[in-house]
Amino acid sequence: MKPRLKKLKKLLQQESLDAAIISSIPNIIYLTDFAHFSSEEREAFLLITGGNNYLFTDRRYIYAAQKHVKDFTICEIGQDNHLEDWIKKIAKKEIINRLGIEENNITIAEYKKIASAVTRTKHYDLHALRMIKSQQEIAAIKKACAITDQAFEHIVEQIQIGMTEKEVALLLEMFIKKHHAELSFNTIVAFAENGAYIHHKTGDKKLTANSPILIDFGVRFQNYCSDMSRTFFFGKATNEQKDAYQTVLASQEKAIEFIQKKLAKKEVINLSEVDLIARDYMVKKKYDSLPHALGHGIGLEVHESPRLSPASEDMITDGMVFSIEPGIYNLNKFGIRIEDIFAVEEHKLVQLTNSSRALLEIHN
Amino acid sequence: MKPRLKKLKKLLQQESLDAAIISSIPNIIYLTDFAHFSSEEREAFLLITGGNNYLFTDRRYIYAAQKHVKDFTICEIGQDNHLEDWIKKIAKKEIINRLGIEENNITIAEYKKIASAVTRTKHYDLHALRMIKSQQEIAAIKKACAITDQAFEHIVEQIQIGMTEKEVALLLEMFIKKHHAELSFNTIVAFAENGAYIHHKTGDKKLTANSPILIDFGVRFQNYCSDMSRTFFFGKATNEQKDAYQTVLASQEKAIEFIQKKLAKKEVINLSEVDLIARDYMVKKKYDSLPHALGHGIGLEVHESPRLSPASEDMITDGMVFSIEPGIYNLNKFGIRIEDIFAVEEHKLVQLTNSSRALLEIHN
Repeated sequence: MKPRLKKLKKLLQQESLDAAIISSIPNIIYLTDFAHFSSEEREAFLLITGGNNYLFTDRRYIYAAQKHVKDFTICEIGQDNHLEDWIKKIAKKEIINRLGIEENNITIAEYKKIASAVTRTKHYDLHALRMIKSQQEIAAIKKACAITDQAFEHIVEQIQIGMTEKEVALLLEMFIKKHHAELSFNTIVAFAENGAYIHHKTGDKKLTANSPILIDFGVRFQNYCSDMSRTFFFGKATNEQKDAYQTVLASQEKAIEFIQKKLAKKEVINLSEVDLIARDYMVKKKYDSLPHALGHGIGLEVHESPRLSPASEDMITDGMVFSIEPGIYNLNKFGIRIEDIFAVEEHKLVQLTNSSRALLEIHN
Repeated sequence: MKPRLKKLKKLLQQESLDAAIISSIPNIIYLTDFAHFSSEEREAFLLITGGNNYLFTDRRYIYAAQKHVKDFTICEIGQDNHLEDWIKKIAKKEIINRLGIEENNITIAEYKKIASAVTRTKHYDLHALRMIKSQQEIAAIKKACAITDQAFEHIVEQIQIGMTEKEVALLLEMFIKKHHAELSFNTIVAFAENGAYIHHKTGDKKLTANSPILIDFGVRFQNYCSDMSRTFFFGKATNEQKDAYQTVLASQEKAIEFIQKKLAKKEVINLSEVDLIARDYMVKKKYDSLPHALGHGIGLEVHESPRLSPASEDMITDGMVFSIEPGIYNLNKFGIRIEDIFAVEEHKLVQLTNSSRALLEIHN
């Protein structure tokens, strides 16, 4: 049995649960390595009991699941055998009274069906398990980050005046797919004032001379994600832009140094403190406080635990992988964001995305 | 105010609801035309009351929402103003007791927060509204279908022995994106026996001679989706494959003719009957009954109401847009699926995807 399944079964014991339903796609991939299901529609559930593991899906996926998913009994959901029928039958046979559910994923409509099959349901989640990555998981993220760096280099070489944001995003995507990887989220390419919209929707704006370019994109490799942002300039940056750029960069460096020093001294590091270091530096430099969290964990999901935010209660430990991404957003003018991914390995902070962060002005 | 908002407000009155929370992304797009939010993470909610419309989102989207979303008050969700705080405040001011929620979309965790703000919640949904498309909506789907036909023609011209499934999918995607559209779902390209997996995950299998090729893909244009499947042959089809192909094609034609005849006579058409016509024909020809529904509605989502399935309770009316997609899946050997999109306009069945359905053998 996979170590992850063992850990989950131990968690269920600790939580006094007889079994758990897994409904979120990243958790299904985490436990089965099977990544066929759409994340937009509900196409599968897992049920983990003390002694058994079940995967429920419909006829569209049943044969692929039988072929690829080890350690699970594959059960077909259909018109005459709904999920709740399966759970009732198994609950009776294996004496399941207390069932764990992902309350942040199960809908009310699903809950009404599932809850009728057992005595009690209770929230549980896998965030704490997934937050600490294995070497194998970190290796996949490293590979995703390496492709990310190559893709960014490709864009710096290819970008030209007159290209639209969408065309640049397509160049990135083609490069990534030709390197046998996928996008981990919809690429943000923001020219000029569009960079001030933190999650700008890549559009048809054309690149003009002396324009800042903000690119925020990620790669998915073997189901694991990367995420990187760079801001650079086609032509010359203004003094105002340069000052903002250097402030964002220094703010990121302050956060990195803070972690490195504390790790070296083996001191406890609260992620809320890391957020504060970067945030305070920007305010000290007379900029607005960061309008989003400083960073987020990354793995099977682009955004997962831990959070680097003022409200975060997590402390840094080996096996964590997260982004550090300060930004300055000057509405109607421009936005600057610099984002890199870091892993904590053997009490050291290892940088996984390695594209240059020096202020870049492209002249051609 | 947009007609859609008016219709929703009327629905709320009929359901004796004081207000409704809209949480699903397709419904948010339906009511706002704003398609920036990720469908994988919860980034926004709408609240529609008798007199007002609110959009709640965080700082990453707030300025873009203010710029693009008309008829809505844009409210920022943050650390100090959670969704439930907003709802409580508005519920008090506008006297909201009974709140509609999308029970098939709201999670238990969200429900626990939202429910504390009002006296009672009740399920409502927009499927019935969205099932009947306006001319403008059908026009967008027609455009998506036209690009779909062009993309398929491009693939028939470009496909070569030795290409992998993923390479063919990438060619399709590039063509679609260069035509200013997006994919509406992850393209299925299945060579040879892979076609027998109904939702095959496109992989690294290479195309060899005398191989069936099943392609199931869709385009998203102005937020509206298309969906089309074709099965063709690189080299020669076997007699077994030809017989299955002609059976699938005839089964689709039986369903189409059934609808056309009944529409002409202005008779009631139950979608369950349409499913049965196609299903029964295949069984009569000694094939297994269809292992999935015959078709599905399509619009802002690839799969939406109505369903063409044995359990469907919907009847055909003007403004419906749906797929008809019979298939034969011969495990370990091959799969055949033919899928087209149809609209019902002025009591006529209009075919929107128009790629040839004649058995195609490519020889080069």
